[in-house]
Amino acid sequence: MHEECGVFGIWGHEQAAQLAYYGLYALQHRGQESAGIAVIDGQTMHSHRGMGLVTEVFANDRLQSLRGFAAVGHVRYSTTGESSIRNAQPLVFDFRQGNLALAHNGNLVNARHIRDILEHQGSIFQSTSDTEVVAHLIARGIYKTIPENVRESMSMLKGAYAFVILTDHELIAMRDPHGLRPMALGQLDGAYVVASETCAFDTIGATFVRDIEPGEMLIIDHNGLQTHRFSETAHKALCTFEYIYFARPDSDIDGFNVHMVRKQLGRLLAREAPVEADVVIGVPDSSISAAIGFAEEAHLPYEIGLIKNKYSGRTFIQPSQELRSLGVRLKLSAVKKIVAGKRVVMVDDSLVRGTTSARLVSLLREAGATEVHVRISSPPVRHSCFYGIDTSAREELIAAKKSIAEIQSFIGADSLAYMEEATMLQAFGVTANEPHGFCNACFTGRYPTEIFPTTKTVLEERSKHPVER
Amino acid sequence: MHEECGVFGIWGHEQAAQLAYYGLYALQHRGQESAGIAVIDGQTMHSHRGMGLVTEVFANDRLQSLRGFAAVGHVRYSTTGESSIRNAQPLVFDFRQGNLALAHNGNLVNARHIRDILEHQGSIFQSTSDTEVVAHLIARGIYKTIPENVRESMSMLKGAYAFVILTDHELIAMRDPHGLRPMALGQLDGAYVVASETCAFDTIGATFVRDIEPGEMLIIDHNGLQTHRFSETAHKALCTFEYIYFARPDSDIDGFNVHMVRKQLGRLLAREAPVEADVVIGVPDSSISAAIGFAEEAHLPYEIGLIKNKYSGRTFIQPSQELRSLGVRLKLSAVKKIVAGKRVVMVDDSLVRGTTSARLVSLLREAGATEVHVRISSPPVRHSCFYGIDTSAREELIAAKKSIAEIQSFIGADSLAYMEEATMLQAFGVTANEPHGFCNACFTGRYPTEIFPTTKTVLEERSKHPVER
Amino acid sequence: MHEECGVFGIWGHEQAAQLAYYGLYALQHRGQESAGIAVIDGQTMHSHRGMGLVTEVFANDRLQSLRGFAAVGHVRYSTTGESSIRNAQPLVFDFRQGNLALAHNGNLVNARHIRDILEHQGSIFQSTSDTEVVAHLIARGIYKTIPENVRESMSMLKGAYAFVILTDHELIAMRDPHGLRPMALGQLDGAYVVASETCAFDTIGATFVRDIEPGEMLIIDHNGLQTHRFSETAHKALCTFEYIYFARPDSDIDGFNVHMVRKQLGRLLAREAPVEADVVIGVPDSSISAAIGFAEEAHLPYEIGLIKNKYSGRTFIQPSQELRSLGVRLKLSAVKKIVAGKRVVMVDDSLVRGTTSARLVSLLREAGATEVHVRISSPPVRHSCFYGIDTSAREELIAAKKSIAEIQSFIGADSLAYMEEATMLQAFGVTANEPHGFCNACFTGRYPTEIFPTTKTVLEERSKHPVER
Amino acid sequence: MHEECGVFGIWGHEQAAQLAYYGLYALQHRGQESAGIAVIDGQTMHSHRGMGLVTEVFANDRLQSLRGFAAVGHVRYSTTGESSIRNAQPLVFDFRQGNLALAHNGNLVNARHIRDILEHQGSIFQSTSDTEVVAHLIARGIYKTIPENVRESMSMLKGAYAFVILTDHELIAMRDPHGLRPMALGQLDGAYVVASETCAFDTIGATFVRDIEPGEMLIIDHNGLQTHRFSETAHKALCTFEYIYFARPDSDIDGFNVHMVRKQLGRLLAREAPVEADVVIGVPDSSISAAIGFAEEAHLPYEIGLIKNKYSGRTFIQPSQELRSLGVRLKLSAVKKIVAGKRVVMVDDSLVRGTTSARLVSLLREAGATEVHVRISSPPVRHSCFYGIDTSAREELIAAKKSIAEIQSFIGADSLAYMEEATMLQAFGVTANEPHGFCNACFTGRYPTEIFPTTKTVLEERSKHPVER
Repeated sequence: MHEECGVFGIWGHEQAAQLAYYGLYALQHRGQESAGIAVIDGQTMHSHRGMGLVTEVFANDRLQSLRGFAAVGHVRYSTTGESSIRNAQPLVFDFRQGNLALAHNGNLVNARHIRDILEHQGSIFQSTSDTEVVAHLIARGIYKTIPENVRESMSMLKGAYAFVILTDHELIAMRDPHGLRPMALGQLDGAYVVASETCAFDTIGATFVRDIEPGEMLIIDHNGLQTHRFSETAHKALCTFEYIYFARPDSDIDGFNVHMVRKQLGRLLAREAPVEADVVIGVPDSSISAAIGFAEEAHLPYEIGLIKNKYSGRTFIQPSQELRSLGVRLKLSAVKKIVAGKRVVMVDDSLVRGTTSARLVSLLREAGATEVHVRISSPPVRHSCFYGIDTSAREELIAAKKSIAEIQSFIGADSLAYMEEATMLQAFGVTANEPHGFCNACFTGRYPTEIFPTTKTVLEERSKHPVER
Repeated sequence: MHEECGVFGIWGHEQAAQLAYYGLYALQHRGQESAGIAVIDGQTMHSHRGMGLVTEVFANDRLQSLRGFAAVGHVRYSTTGESSIRNAQPLVFDFRQGNLALAHNGNLVNARHIRDILEHQGSIFQSTSDTEVVAHLIARGIYKTIPENVRESMSMLKGAYAFVILTDHELIAMRDPHGLRPMALGQLDGAYVVASETCAFDTIGATFVRDIEPGEMLIIDHNGLQTHRFSETAHKALCTFEYIYFARPDSDIDGFNVHMVRKQLGRLLAREAPVEADVVIGVPDSSISAAIGFAEEAHLPYEIGLIKNKYSGRTFIQPSQELRSLGVRLKLSAVKKIVAGKRVVMVDDSLVRGTTSARLVSLLREAGATEVHVRISSPPVRHSCFYGIDTSAREELIAAKKSIAEIQSFIGADSLAYMEEATMLQAFGVTANEPHGFCNACFTGRYPTEIFPTTKTVLEERSKHPVER
Repeated sequence: MHEECGVFGIWGHEQAAQLAYYGLYALQHRGQESAGIAVIDGQTMHSHRGMGLVTEVFANDRLQSLRGFAAVGHVRYSTTGESSIRNAQPLVFDFRQGNLALAHNGNLVNARHIRDILEHQGSIFQSTSDTEVVAHLIARGIYKTIPENVRESMSMLKGAYAFVILTDHELIAMRDPHGLRPMALGQLDGAYVVASETCAFDTIGATFVRDIEPGEMLIIDHNGLQTHRFSETAHKALCTFEYIYFARPDSDIDGFNVHMVRKQLGRLLAREAPVEADVVIGVPDSSISAAIGFAEEAHLPYEIGLIKNKYSGRTFIQPSQELRSLGVRLKLSAVKKIVAGKRVVMVDDSLVRGTTSARLVSLLREAGATEVHVRISSPPVRHSCFYGIDTSAREELIAAKKSIAEIQSFIGADSLAYMEEATMLQAFGVTANEPHGFCNACFTGRYPTEIFPTTKTVLEERSKHPVER
Repeated sequence: MHEECGVFGIWGHEQAAQLAYYGLYALQHRGQESAGIAVIDGQTMHSHRGMGLVTEVFANDRLQSLRGFAAVGHVRYSTTGESSIRNAQPLVFDFRQGNLALAHNGNLVNARHIRDILEHQGSIFQSTSDTEVVAHLIARGIYKTIPENVRESMSMLKGAYAFVILTDHELIAMRDPHGLRPMALGQLDGAYVVASETCAFDTIGATFVRDIEPGEMLIIDHNGLQTHRFSETAHKALCTFEYIYFARPDSDIDGFNVHMVRKQLGRLLAREAPVEADVVIGVPDSSISAAIGFAEEAHLPYEIGLIKNKYSGRTFIQPSQELRSLGVRLKLSAVKKIVAGKRVVMVDDSLVRGTTSARLVSLLREAGATEVHVRISSPPVRHSCFYGIDTSAREELIAAKKSIAEIQSFIGADSLAYMEEATMLQAFGVTANEPHGFCNACFTGRYPTEIFPTTKTVLEERSKHPVER
């Protein structure tokens, strides 16, 4: 499962590019495929983007040439194909009204529709990215100022987005009317900062001001900050997976700290699905908080039963099938002294296809665990996400096809329990029956927006036959 | 002085990308800044482009992933900025009618005009390249087939171009109505090949078929080769600098072998501007042929009096001013034993700003030459080129500001002679007074096409304030 | 503080180099400066080593060319200088008795003495590494077989070492008479494996057989495994810092699991130095286990109060002083929601110079902690290590100069407590008063071996004026 | 055929490393496999070496860290194996008398003998290079100063060598008693410079002082320059292949300019082996001078009939056999317009295995040459070189096995003529019958030094079973 992106913007600081670099570095967990930064210096827009980690893309003196007082940055998720530099962001365009750099986190469900229309009007596309569609809409806008054309373009978009746009004259930040993807506003030394997660603020020493509202458009320029609403109603529907899996534990999103939510999910899970056991372990890194919560609530010792090797890199040589069958295990190791002879509760934050869980259960048994009880701190994932999370196509989601008993058998656990949606919502102090402000579509199938018939098909086909460039 | 590009296309060979690689390798002298190849395999278009030499851009296994039966390739000239990957070609687009890859050699004099119009219609641009303008025109075409829309687009373009376009269904090659830039057609093993110069055919073992005609559009697809004329009249005006400086000596362009032309220029120069001397030397590499011709005609020994170091690379460390003042000379060395005590004729193919010539004359004197007579195998360059040659802005052209006597004094030569335009044309068997089929605008100021008022301004300003991306 | 190295050896497997690669990958935490592997194929010894992580050094097809049935590998700690490829191991030599590859973890206290003697006998040295001294001793040996000469050479060495040596005919593994550095023996699929830590066995699927004994020499060849003792008595003195800081939590060393020891140290610390507080946090990564133990014993919640960014790389751009003063904090972030308004216990495994602790305390206060109590799960470090741990020179050790109260004030904590040596030993079930089998010299100044007068001087000077190559 | 190396040394200049860099750049044609520089700054010796061209090895800021007032540099020839960084020079050692950096051009015929003796005395070797043997001899010397021990060591060496040695206190340059390999002395701005070829002086702006004498040892230190003779008699025997093939045309070696010698060889060849023909061409780059001389003497036009692509690099992708059979020809192209319908004289400087010549003759015929007459400006190579030239083993030398008629038939030429040894010597103004100062052993089998029985065997076996490291 991959988060699609992290975005960052800053206006009003002499060292805009450097701060974007450190901000993206803090957001690196949201995407490791590519990174990019665009800056303006009052005259010209400069940009650089490349494949790899922020530190790799901006190695050598790349950052030096990006001088300016405002910047927008982007990190993108990791895929296997190396050739997708064209999809790296921020996308930078030159059009009638000047320069435009766009950074986008999310997924537009009607992008294909709009693209078809634009293509019939003669538009050409250089990437497969939804974001390019938005650039065309803005360029074809009829208003005199870019912000007006941006706002008008937003009214045509459906889906999930947190946008940061840099023009020659302003920085614009927007969050979709449902607030599916997070974005926050901060301040540093007189400058304004926006970022997908607050951990970016902590890293650069900025102060958190507030979350950006669903349907809100911030315009930051030499006159300061203005706020506009480009969408009226729409009930809020923040992605719960941000808390469960993607975000950094030290980030606060829409008022909740990620680690605290995870720990609380662990506690609730311990109450809902208790089990007689000797020790509680978590799957590194994202399930550690939930495992600690589970252990506290269950009055069981929390232990480091699985260790993750932190030195894998882009040039890692995968073991041959032969070596794998010998037992070469590279990413996670079980700690024998901890699990041997023990009844182990393994807390994981989610279970998508089941193959990793099956491998971990087997690893723990080989290490001597007498029982392995798997506890998932979220409900079964039964539906695809169309809002920017790279869950697999629906037929690969094990919970879409198998019962919980079948899944337990598939992964070889002595017991398996997921969390109910209602229980999960308790961690946020809300209930499932009334409007609660979260998107749980991947668990429930209740999508907060219209899902265009073609979207599913397009997304699924795209993953089969990618238009590589 | 830089040639802008080399283009290559192939249709109907299983190893299209590999052959494009070797073809571009043969055309590498036409551009060292970036290289790229796009292929089609009947389903998808794949492409890769990058900064650097062909061998660098396609290092590792980059070529492996470019499987297909047709390819288009491009090499681009060297500039100092590293960040111009966006201008690397072939440009690849997705539009209403499918995929499109464009490779362009030349310069469109009305590109800025068309771009303004397109921008006012809402087009967005991702590069500063003229070529992107053409993609927009094609995409906005009203005809049902891409070739029709390509042809229609060509009618709007003014300037110099050799285009190779790859679509999902055909390879299209065009040369502008004046034939300012060269392009030839070849065959290999049942496949069709097009290239800027015939040396690419020799390298891949292809047979030369014929030069592509000015105003001709070749369409190559599964049904074979069709030829169309997209422009009626227009007198031919092939760039003489292709012969004088850019092209490889082993290439034949529009019926003339480059080495033979150069040698003949040398002979004619010896007749026109003889000098009492002991030895004739040429400035490597492009002036060697002319120097040999001069020596033969003058019955003087031709010697290797200047040697060029062939191992400079992209990471070369330039000497500090201090070391330069000590006499560190990296690119060219004078051979003392050859020039010491001798009256030397130094033949050079052209003289643009005069600084290099001044350095070489001084180098030869330090090496002991008693006299240095400079002979230029082309007329004085007094006008900017708007057709794809990166001559300097007009105020940097020494012959635009100084008399020949002043130039002789500036470079410190004992004598200096250029060639008359009429003499130069003799090398091709034509005369200056009647239509002769060559563009000598940089010598004469007689441009074969309209030059848009803004073009000069735009070009000159662009070189001062490049829109970096 | 840096561990000097990790070593790995394997004999009797067709994929020796690949397994060494994965073994070194598991040992990567013991050294990130350089990596190397040497193999034998029965005829020739092949080797490759380079600067950087295992995955970087063996990128491309480097591993392919290392075919053989036996291998020795090495990872070395990180320094700032890039030019120390000469010190990368395994060192490979050709001498009278054939080929020899040496991999060494530890430090020889009399290396300088032996080197002086060897130099006076005409030896030449290509590295500053102690290991090269050993190669000379072996080559000058008077016995007929390499193992005999190796054993004889060991008798001349004083200090800490775990050696793995590969010759044309055998793999030899030795641990110094005090067992200062760890090494274990395993088996995989009929092959023998040795490694600094057992986590390497788990990664490649090997079975742990036993720890190698202090003063033991294992010879593994086509006839199987032989054990010899090259040193008689000597009381065992395993470095406690292996448990406290260096080793991976999932490794077992001489019978103790690292995570379990750390957790027990945390429990003992909570008993020895309790404090009224709201929350316990650990300094990632090595202090997490101790923090969990402390929290359990103190019945306080364990929380993730400090987060480490895991994406830093070799090309990381350090922030300017100006940005640092703005508050740019890259490696560790405090989680505000967890520590704000709380009395925090920060558990760290050791405190060497105090600067990091001071920074972390300040970070926690800025994040809103009302009190910060620092608990160190080891005694004060007051003495330099001469056995392979890169502690600072003695004058940089804060506990060598300041009282605990002064240190508390320096780091700005509300309270500070270290652990007594006696308490620490309880974690291993031994007492300080009787022979206990551990080296605590950095805490106590009681060095298990003679420390040559020059050693200190040499080591300290070396760090000031490194003989770079 | 490969030249083994180029050496460079400088003493007494603040920018020693930079000047070494440019000097090696001028000597790059003598070796492209590896490059290295060592410097001293009065306190420490710093060095860096790596695989690849000088510009690649010293990319980034590598040169910055090499501060000092004296330097020694080396370039080494190209082989296929990448792993030979250990053989890269200068070799740098630390021994009783301080630091020592050695750079060597040539080959020691008794290196294996000395190495055997040293190994029996307990020496260890880290490279397969002869040069390491010399370092051991110096270190085992019994004299008080390094220069004395160097001189003594030289007395034990047999074979070809130009050595440049840098110590903490002096720069030492030596040429073997036969002067088999060239080396010259220059001056620059108060500093002394030594280099394999004078082209290095011209590049850095140094003045040629004189050639270093066979058997001479120069010691350059803060007191200036001293000269010693370490060998008495020995008749001089400079390698003629330096003139024929290796050296740069602008270099002067022992009084003769390389280009002038080559041109004179061409003239003599035209007299000795005239042929009725239309045009004379040379094989680039080294045969151009001879071809010009041949053409002048024969009163035939000299033309550029073969063109060499100058853009090949280290990452060049070799064509598959299939593409090669299609006619892909990458390095050299024939110029059809020049050779078609012509009787061509192809002048080449030497003919070793015959395969290249056969390919070129065939290339010329395909390009339409009606006759191809091959003229070789040196005698048949019938014997291996043991002095540093990587000629093939004897069984691969076509002239050792076949008659000239058979060779002509093998390469498919209409006629073939070599040059007589006596004629070749005329170019230097000497005759074959009296002592003439040149080594022609590869033509005549008369080796100027003893050839140790094992040398041949060792060299030949080494090329079959390289001890890779």
